[in-house]
Amino acid sequence: MLAPVYFDHNATTPLDARVLEAMLPFLCEGCGNASSRHDYGRLARAAVDAARQQVAAAVGAHATEVIFTSGGSEANNLFIKGAAACCDQGLLAFSSIEHPCVREPARELQRQGWRLHEIAVDAAGRIDAADYAATLKRQPRLISVMLANNETGVMQDVAALAAQAQTVSGAAWFHSDAVQAFGKVAVDFRTLNAAGVHALTLSAHKLGGPQGAGALIVDKRVELRPLIAGGGQERGLRSGTENVAAIVGFGHACTLVAERIAEMARLEKLRHALEAGLNHLGATIFGAAADMTRLPNTVYFALPDIDGETLVGKLDRAGFAVASGAACSSANPAPSHVLQSMGVDPALARGAVRVSLGLGNTARQVDDFIAVLGDTLYQLRRLTALTG
Amino acid sequence: MLAPVYFDHNATTPLDARVLEAMLPFLCEGCGNASSRHDYGRLARAAVDAARQQVAAAVGAHATEVIFTSGGSEANNLFIKGAAACCDQGLLAFSSIEHPCVREPARELQRQGWRLHEIAVDAAGRIDAADYAATLKRQPRLISVMLANNETGVMQDVAALAAQAQTVSGAAWFHSDAVQAFGKVAVDFRTLNAAGVHALTLSAHKLGGPQGAGALIVDKRVELRPLIAGGGQERGLRSGTENVAAIVGFGHACTLVAERIAEMARLEKLRHALEAGLNHLGATIFGAAADMTRLPNTVYFALPDIDGETLVGKLDRAGFAVASGAACSSANPAPSHVLQSMGVDPALARGAVRVSLGLGNTARQVDDFIAVLGDTLYQLRRLTALTG
Repeated sequence: MLAPVYFDHNATTPLDARVLEAMLPFLCEGCGNASSRHDYGRLARAAVDAARQQVAAAVGAHATEVIFTSGGSEANNLFIKGAAACCDQGLLAFSSIEHPCVREPARELQRQGWRLHEIAVDAAGRIDAADYAATLKRQPRLISVMLANNETGVMQDVAALAAQAQTVSGAAWFHSDAVQAFGKVAVDFRTLNAAGVHALTLSAHKLGGPQGAGALIVDKRVELRPLIAGGGQERGLRSGTENVAAIVGFGHACTLVAERIAEMARLEKLRHALEAGLNHLGATIFGAAADMTRLPNTVYFALPDIDGETLVGKLDRAGFAVASGAACSSANPAPSHVLQSMGVDPALARGAVRVSLGLGNTARQVDDFIAVLGDTLYQLRRLTALTG
Repeated sequence: MLAPVYFDHNATTPLDARVLEAMLPFLCEGCGNASSRHDYGRLARAAVDAARQQVAAAVGAHATEVIFTSGGSEANNLFIKGAAACCDQGLLAFSSIEHPCVREPARELQRQGWRLHEIAVDAAGRIDAADYAATLKRQPRLISVMLANNETGVMQDVAALAAQAQTVSGAAWFHSDAVQAFGKVAVDFRTLNAAGVHALTLSAHKLGGPQGAGALIVDKRVELRPLIAGGGQERGLRSGTENVAAIVGFGHACTLVAERIAEMARLEKLRHALEAGLNHLGATIFGAAADMTRLPNTVYFALPDIDGETLVGKLDRAGFAVASGAACSSANPAPSHVLQSMGVDPALARGAVRVSLGLGNTARQVDDFIAVLGDTLYQLRRLTALTG
């Protein structure tokens, strides 16, 4: 059997062969500890420094604003817990559609005495303007709103939200999880920072880089307490022997990000073809009303009376790797909190399936997918009719 | 010029070629997110599960007692902060020679109201029995004593210390940082756990595995709060997309650990030859009184009136990669806190140089090192005499 068609790029992307090539010298014999003061150590240190420049350049940041972490979840936890530890307790506001790695550290702060507010979104998955305005009046100390949602692909106008926060609630630090946006659309920290965004979270394995590397890009005015303290790496903000190969891979993936974004116009056409086919089959496409501000590669849909888990299993056996709900929390099969926040009927939400396209995908694969999906639906509905 | 002779294996070890081979399929195209519910995801999940069995088997633990982390520093922080968050505040006792990634999270707890006690060591670097007994009477809630010190290589009888803690202070959780011991001497969690050790920290890159993977081996009675919360990976105790390739490499390195330990008898002979040469040159060898309980590969020494940093630089240019103080904290050139704790004269401590041998090292390299060191000392002393 052929390898399954991979339609789950928001969960993780294949490692770019050129990135692996850049990493290999640091995996083969001879990679030192970047803190060691000899040739091996200096080579590792130089590689980490070069990667820091590459990551910074890809998002319009300065190298000194890059804190390497083991990934996006760690970077989100570092910002939420680390910035909170340096503020007086107060209100933490975050959108109701944030990834669990923002929501869960927020709950941890709540146990310590912080107040939380989940900013509402509308039916299209965009921040609700009235609730956001009301939130700012409550003078939050920390705000976290993601650039693009991992499930729906819906993007927020984070620059405008941050600018509004600056005006109404100037003492707040504004963070944005850019894990899903970075690599699919242009992300520029300099512009965002000028508007009032103080920190961005990035992850390497969402853009052809390796698992095990991410970064918090942070305005140096933000005081942070480290999550992992010890040897003092990353200016004391993230201790532990640097994962040199993964950091080198992250840096190299960042040098290829413009090329990746250039491919998104082609993927967006595939997405439109996919959505036309899905509409024809009677699917509801979540976030479709936010069409102008969705990631080019992401389609999140449900079909009436079809269970999402069942459909994902059938599609997997038919050779298509797609996701039900967010892959990062697939250990938990509860209905998506993102769809709940958008006011989606729970019965429909349980049918949610995500297709996230990537560089290797083709028009032919999309056509085949629609054909297979049509057949699968026919079978599932016939089964329901027979047993119903 | 030939590649420098690598004598810094306590900082990091070269990745074993067989480990890299095991990792490569997960670095090449086709590695999924281990939480995804399709073929790619299941393949990644199966690989993580297999690695968990391999790590558990290598330390006599059960697979469900393994929490994968990004490395040793994260695992130490997870235990110290995570166990403390689930206890009433009280006394945290740790040896005065612990790695900064135990000391620093301890200081963080102190800011939150915990009391700290640094358990004294004797001149040989072993836990001071009287101070330890007195500490236990104070009923600490958490105790952390490393199996082997990264600088001196001195080992503690952790099983005996834990058993004593069980008797005197039964409510304490006892943790041991086994990062330097694991891969050099046999480490058996089942035996240690029976004696009263509740958690062990491991790191892959100290035993021929990759940077970016480590583990906390933990008795399930210990309640922990995660450092990185989110998607709920690692039974909710460490969220974030698994670094599948690094975890696979860690697991594979664990299958080779017996072979590595078998080589230690040869390295111990090299160490004895090295120490004989050093003694002949008038060196002080730190922890030598603990000879029976030192790691087989580690020599930590100083020569009168010779600055350690200067010597490391000279040796580096002469083709020998060694460390001054602990590499993990080489960003900080303050005299070693380990030597301070052992009561070493600060003037002598500033001369500290560590040689840590590994699989690739030979008797010839040790002989060459002693010869080069002799020449270097002659030059440095002549320079001092001329300018003095």
